[in-house]
Amino acid sequence: MLKTPETTTAGEVSFAIHATEGTARTGALHLGRGSVRTPAFMPVGTAGTVKAMYVDQVKDLGADIILGNTYHLMLRPGAERVAALGGLHEFSRWQGPILTDSGGFQVMSLAGLRKLDKNGVTFRSHIDGSHHRLTPERSVEIQTLLDSDIIMQLDECVRLPSTRKDIERAMRLSLDWAERSKSAFGTQPGKAIFGIVQGGDIPDLRIASAEALSSMNFPGYAIGGLAVGEPQAVMLDMIETVEPHLPREKPRYLMGVGTPDDLIESVSRGIDMFDCVMPTRAGRHGLAYSRFGKVNLKNARHAEDPRPLDEASSCPAARDYSRAYLHHLTKANEILGMMLLTWINLAYYQDLMAGMRAAIAEGRFADFKAKTKENWARGDIAKL
Amino acid sequence: MLKTPETTTAGEVSFAIHATEGTARTGALHLGRGSVRTPAFMPVGTAGTVKAMYVDQVKDLGADIILGNTYHLMLRPGAERVAALGGLHEFSRWQGPILTDSGGFQVMSLAGLRKLDKNGVTFRSHIDGSHHRLTPERSVEIQTLLDSDIIMQLDECVRLPSTRKDIERAMRLSLDWAERSKSAFGTQPGKAIFGIVQGGDIPDLRIASAEALSSMNFPGYAIGGLAVGEPQAVMLDMIETVEPHLPREKPRYLMGVGTPDDLIESVSRGIDMFDCVMPTRAGRHGLAYSRFGKVNLKNARHAEDPRPLDEASSCPAARDYSRAYLHHLTKANEILGMMLLTWINLAYYQDLMAGMRAAIAEGRFADFKAKTKENWARGDIAKL
Repeated sequence: MLKTPETTTAGEVSFAIHATEGTARTGALHLGRGSVRTPAFMPVGTAGTVKAMYVDQVKDLGADIILGNTYHLMLRPGAERVAALGGLHEFSRWQGPILTDSGGFQVMSLAGLRKLDKNGVTFRSHIDGSHHRLTPERSVEIQTLLDSDIIMQLDECVRLPSTRKDIERAMRLSLDWAERSKSAFGTQPGKAIFGIVQGGDIPDLRIASAEALSSMNFPGYAIGGLAVGEPQAVMLDMIETVEPHLPREKPRYLMGVGTPDDLIESVSRGIDMFDCVMPTRAGRHGLAYSRFGKVNLKNARHAEDPRPLDEASSCPAARDYSRAYLHHLTKANEILGMMLLTWINLAYYQDLMAGMRAAIAEGRFADFKAKTKENWARGDIAKL
Repeated sequence: MLKTPETTTAGEVSFAIHATEGTARTGALHLGRGSVRTPAFMPVGTAGTVKAMYVDQVKDLGADIILGNTYHLMLRPGAERVAALGGLHEFSRWQGPILTDSGGFQVMSLAGLRKLDKNGVTFRSHIDGSHHRLTPERSVEIQTLLDSDIIMQLDECVRLPSTRKDIERAMRLSLDWAERSKSAFGTQPGKAIFGIVQGGDIPDLRIASAEALSSMNFPGYAIGGLAVGEPQAVMLDMIETVEPHLPREKPRYLMGVGTPDDLIESVSRGIDMFDCVMPTRAGRHGLAYSRFGKVNLKNARHAEDPRPLDEASSCPAARDYSRAYLHHLTKANEILGMMLLTWINLAYYQDLMAGMRAAIAEGRFADFKAKTKENWARGDIAKL
């Protein structure tokens, strides 16, 4: 259903929904540094680079925004250093918007000797063992030093399965940190801070979190603590649970998700933004995403196959090279193999998002979804 | 001195010298697949890829020809497999000429359990321990299967220092293999086979080798067995010793060389072609070549330096990124760091060759050489 754009403005930040189909929607998030067409997939540029990609390539694939990891950047090269060098955009030459996470998730997954208290978390760097501390205020300060366009509140994310007690404690702490983060963010024209819904796999906790955050009036809302070990069905249930309790006129970002199927199912349920290391990480390990599903180029069946990975891909790397060559590069651990497969995978992800945006705008998303899944189910081309 | 082009033809292969200045010369080697402007630097594409570079980038830098390593390619993916896939050009999408080495040098430096006899060398793969044998005939066969444009004879290269006895034995064996290689090559329109001068650091052996090879009338001649541990002065002496004994109307290729200074000094002494892993390997280890010499980006002095590596470089990577960013990528072992520095280094090498070609053509090579060395001696820019 095409709509008269509904826009909410916060500073220069606004979000316009151009069309909906069921719960799915397409639109644009306008930020000071540029607009993000939604639903959007944000390539992950952990340490100031989308791994194995030139920055111009990332832009050319149609990515409007990339993600930077606060944890990695605060440790190396350091937030103050990036600020002195003009911020993360100037540093990395990515001129569009950047979203940074709060650092909290990676402290929990990567850092050593973590100690959490109600004011923050103290930890040791996985790089050199040095001591660091993140509080809600320091996380916002670091993200501001990086010159991030979308700042994420510090939160605590628990792995699933966890007990209700642990999940609730983390959710309440995250709400407290949401307020402190928003207050620390203050007013930054053209920039936004997002609150993060927690509550694990427990519906009433998720709803309580979403409602409490909504009352804080964030420019955008993330759903965190999913894709952390639970089945896809649980994740989708949680999205359905939360969705009605988030203001519909604000962008919704599902953090750290996911597979192409996760993306299409989540867009169906009203999600506007995603980030995930899957396409880039898979590309460095010989795995390709294609119209016909996931392809393991390390498999010996490709060794003598002159056919391209996907002759209909928008990405030259998927069209111009044989499977045999991609197989060879992957087996030989050649950097070019990582470059080509990362490129192919990000192109696939961006094309999937563009396809969803167009389909929703034209009222044929249900059909698009069915056909896309049919192709995945068909599987990769037969052995020669 | 500008000349009427002198051309020698062998099949469709010809070499034209367009201008000379002293012993230095510039011209073009015409092959069936395209022309190679000389003096030429051939980027090394060991296993069917110039590491960390897209093939289009290599072409765009002005490289007319790249090198492939027979040893690596025969082991993985295998010469017969590459042939079945349409040859190395089709496989790697490099459409210009390719020179392949004979495999002999890498058998000596990489393979296990080598056993040399008068008919060839038997060895074990460094990848999987499998047994292989290279003879002069099999090396030519493999290179032909790869569809190489310039095939190198199998030779035996001894490390320096070595005894006269060892050097002479290897030189005589290499001459025998030169005849056998040339005979195995037969007639291949548009393609060439080069003989390789050996003789270590012993002038009379070098001269004997050059004269014996010249009498075999190869389409081109390489000088092998240099840059294997001896000082630069010894290498340059050997070039000066050999040069008058090679036919001046044929191309001369100095194998595995070298630093920018090696290149300029060797061109002065009449060399037309080079290959070396230095620019690519250095780029993967944080080292950059620039107008002002070699720069180690890992050095902490770059950590906060907003200046580009070289604002006058032809390479966007040297102009658009700060030293601080290159330092960061290098320290963090990011693939993009390898991509950018490899690009910068190959651009520097290609620009150096283009500069030499233009200078010789315009009779100002002596001046170009002096100014280039002056810049290197000036050293990299001062600390901020």
